[in-house]
Amino acid sequence: MNYKLFYAPGTASMAVHWMLIELAVPFEAIPVDISQGQQRDPEYLRLNPSGRVPTLIVDDVPYGETVALMMLLAERHAAAGLMPDTNSPDRAEWLQLTIYIANTLMPAMRDWLYAAKDGDPAGADAVKALAERRISSVWDNFETRLEAKGDHLLGERFGMVDMLAVMLMRWSRKMPCSAIDRPTLHQYATQVTRRPSYIDLCDREGLSGWPT
Amino acid sequence: MNYKLFYAPGTASMAVHWMLIELAVPFEAIPVDISQGQQRDPEYLRLNPSGRVPTLIVDDVPYGETVALMMLLAERHAAAGLMPDTNSPDRAEWLQLTIYIANTLMPAMRDWLYAAKDGDPAGADAVKALAERRISSVWDNFETRLEAKGDHLLGERFGMVDMLAVMLMRWSRKMPCSAIDRPTLHQYATQVTRRPSYIDLCDREGLSGWPT
Repeated sequence: MNYKLFYAPGTASMAVHWMLIELAVPFEAIPVDISQGQQRDPEYLRLNPSGRVPTLIVDDVPYGETVALMMLLAERHAAAGLMPDTNSPDRAEWLQLTIYIANTLMPAMRDWLYAAKDGDPAGADAVKALAERRISSVWDNFETRLEAKGDHLLGERFGMVDMLAVMLMRWSRKMPCSAIDRPTLHQYATQVTRRPSYIDLCDREGLSGWPT
Repeated sequence: MNYKLFYAPGTASMAVHWMLIELAVPFEAIPVDISQGQQRDPEYLRLNPSGRVPTLIVDDVPYGETVALMMLLAERHAAAGLMPDTNSPDRAEWLQLTIYIANTLMPAMRDWLYAAKDGDPAGADAVKALAERRISSVWDNFETRLEAKGDHLLGERFGMVDMLAVMLMRWSRKMPCSAIDRPTLHQYATQVTRRPSYIDLCDREGLSGWPT
């Protein structure tokens, strides 16, 4: 296994970076300075034509899409138990939750953060309003789950979906619909971010101050 | 294996229905009359709290999320080869493409079709304009892929992502950005929809007239 991660602190690469640390596999981490537009450098675009982070080079081939990379790492390092096995009765629920986060929460976050850049700035307020409604509905869903399941989104066991969810909850910290304004989600974030892998991640990416 | 599919013709359930037919596994298909709002019946909401189709009952447990259901079926019936195996060198690319469709094309389709219902009708035009831009960028991506890969999105072999992609391309038939206005995509849709499983699906769902 040979991994090289192109990342920018606090962005979508964060969950993949966290996962590599949690898995304790060797990898090389290469910062992409998005404040300088490095993600648009021709050299980077050859690896990631969409000009986004993360890119993960796996055995010399570059791939993108955060959730895909996390699923790939979870199955390449299945012994770590970061997802239910193919034959587990929890498998279908894991797939359902992972896809739900990928196609509901992640696009709404993109809308909220990039409406004016991806589309016509004149329409950005309308796009953001719908995004906020959707983000709130996902927090409702997470609350219901945690109240039913216990410590993590799929139950007792910490896993890939928790790293993905907590990263996205962190992104909402300056939004009107900040996840940790909800006591159940605040408690969840507090507990999950106590993991040594998260603390190590924050050291490496220079992140602090959330959740407080 | 015990499957029961709740579906409405031509909706997101279509790709799951197609896949069950393609896999030639026994299943029961139960229509949900969305023109009568049956997806909001308390009985249906108990199976699918979001009030959407499809719901697939797998060994007596209900699940939603089209892409998750397709991934689940592909791995439960791995011998059919509708996705690359875990150890295949194509696995990462399959995951990347599947997640890309789930978190780029599917939400943009929802925005285009339901902007006024999911959000403030006054903002629907702005949401739809951004959605159209994104849908077109996915068609660009599909064209590039097919020109490089050949007959299917991942190369020679037909698979799960083709069923997902063709369903979504069909949804664009009344949009300004109709996929089959592009010759490469028109040829791809024409060829993939010649499969006996698609013809059988159209018979069962009463669909016709696309692609022409």
